[in-house]
Amino acid sequence: MSQTFALAIHGGAGTIRRSDLTPEIEQATHAGLLRALEAGSAILRDGGSALDAVTAAVCALEDEPLFNAGRGAVFTSAGRQEMDAAVMNGADRRAGAVAGLFGPRNPIRAARAVMEGSPHVMMIGEAAARIAQEAGLPFEEASYFFTQKRWDALQETLALRARGETSSDAAVRHGTVGAVACDLNGNLAAATSTGGMTGKAPGRVGDTPVIGAGTLADDICAVSGTGHGEVFIRYGAAAEIAARMRHLGESLDAAADHVVHRVLAPNDGSGGLVAVDRHGNVALPFNSEGMYRGYVRSGKAPVTAIY
Amino acid sequence: MSQTFALAIHGGAGTIRRSDLTPEIEQATHAGLLRALEAGSAILRDGGSALDAVTAAVCALEDEPLFNAGRGAVFTSAGRQEMDAAVMNGADRRAGAVAGLFGPRNPIRAARAVMEGSPHVMMIGEAAARIAQEAGLPFEEASYFFTQKRWDALQETLALRARGETSSDAAVRHGTVGAVACDLNGNLAAATSTGGMTGKAPGRVGDTPVIGAGTLADDICAVSGTGHGEVFIRYGAAAEIAARMRHLGESLDAAADHVVHRVLAPNDGSGGLVAVDRHGNVALPFNSEGMYRGYVRSGKAPVTAIY
Repeated sequence: MSQTFALAIHGGAGTIRRSDLTPEIEQATHAGLLRALEAGSAILRDGGSALDAVTAAVCALEDEPLFNAGRGAVFTSAGRQEMDAAVMNGADRRAGAVAGLFGPRNPIRAARAVMEGSPHVMMIGEAAARIAQEAGLPFEEASYFFTQKRWDALQETLALRARGETSSDAAVRHGTVGAVACDLNGNLAAATSTGGMTGKAPGRVGDTPVIGAGTLADDICAVSGTGHGEVFIRYGAAAEIAARMRHLGESLDAAADHVVHRVLAPNDGSGGLVAVDRHGNVALPFNSEGMYRGYVRSGKAPVTAIY
Repeated sequence: MSQTFALAIHGGAGTIRRSDLTPEIEQATHAGLLRALEAGSAILRDGGSALDAVTAAVCALEDEPLFNAGRGAVFTSAGRQEMDAAVMNGADRRAGAVAGLFGPRNPIRAARAVMEGSPHVMMIGEAAARIAQEAGLPFEEASYFFTQKRWDALQETLALRARGETSSDAAVRHGTVGAVACDLNGNLAAATSTGGMTGKAPGRVGDTPVIGAGTLADDICAVSGTGHGEVFIRYGAAAEIAARMRHLGESLDAAADHVVHRVLAPNDGSGGLVAVDRHGNVALPFNSEGMYRGYVRSGKAPVTAIY
């Protein structure tokens, strides 16, 4: 097949103003993205599967408190953390998704446990946590997932709401991490994980665990999205990229650009996505001010960017 | 626009053996389907919206204990009922979905409350019930939803499992109701509601509330599915019909047939779907032995069928 591997990741999109980004946080963000690229590409370089690579990359992003997934997830309006995640393997379209999850250290591994250890695709709430438990995945206490920054963001959001205002910072609804990969056999996979939106209603599920919306992998492309989840669901963002490539013969670039700029953007669907095709091409379009992102292809140095 | 209205409904698909169907149940099933067709078509005839028509049709199916949605929903392995539902309006692609719901008499109205009364698309569990409560929807006690037939089916499923066997009756995983409509203005809508599979794991979510899988409406077609939900999700069944019509120029019939017989059937995706386009054409393909179904078009008598 491709003889090329490729891995692309994102750590969320939104109004990431340069002025709000201290040099320290900027540096830490690039370092976090690089660690995730390294975790995934080490597997691909050794001939490992795209599925293992996206799982490893997303685990690294979940472990990094800077990003809104796993450790460092945002809080709901009730002061809790509810995490969603999904993983999909392109070759056979197997998929696993969890929503409203709390407990497993790496929600993406819980999604993978649903895919590999159950006949189901989507599991919610405590039942999803139970599958992770049965799979022997590590769990963490609330103190592990807690970060002061996210807690302060919730207090700020609640204070604004109490005054009838909404945050001007669209980034509060844009925290998600994800990875897509093409392995040396030309197999594709996608993985996405999120804490959702700061101050979201408990029980709200965004596009991350909705196969075809925020996460998709088949034999033609793999996609992981980040943005205004409801719009990604309503327009089936990820599935539409695959459909345009398959039915219209569009390139990965053209299809991904079309969906981000012509379908999502005009419909209040701010955000972006990372995508890869079976030839190892990558696309990382976004219509927001920035998107934490990075990619690496075989034999090349990894690249990370924010704006 | 079309000057024709059309409404198509289903009450589930699966191995519905003629030998298992008493004349009394067969007659009651046709009568239940006819009531739902009448509830929806009365609205369309008066110039009402496709959205109102599919909501009314699905409410009628939920109220009928013969079908696996609302009253008469199946039981999980824990002996509880967990309902999923979704509704989508084609013109503006607004959508609402609920999963793991118990309480509201009509889960489809809860899905619509999410669509119309919240900024979200998908809500799960108690949070979904809360939105229904805030919308003033009627709730019912467990005794209202209980039917002896479904309870006996659970006991039978659990007994089989205890002996390491599985039911030969695929119908246990195929209970769903749904409706699609094209109104006199050529607007489309889809609605789907289900109790899931008998003896399903608590927390399992099928294709019904996954927009693009079991439910979809846009400006070209509306689709509601019933069948092996996991496969409908993995292949994005409903979205693929819309994509084939939009990108390949296929007719509703051709696109729906392709997905049911060429995409789902070869991948263990037994089941079927109802679909309608903006010209009022209807398609009701299935790859299972039967599918409770019916349709009505303006000026014509309603048609119902099982095999």
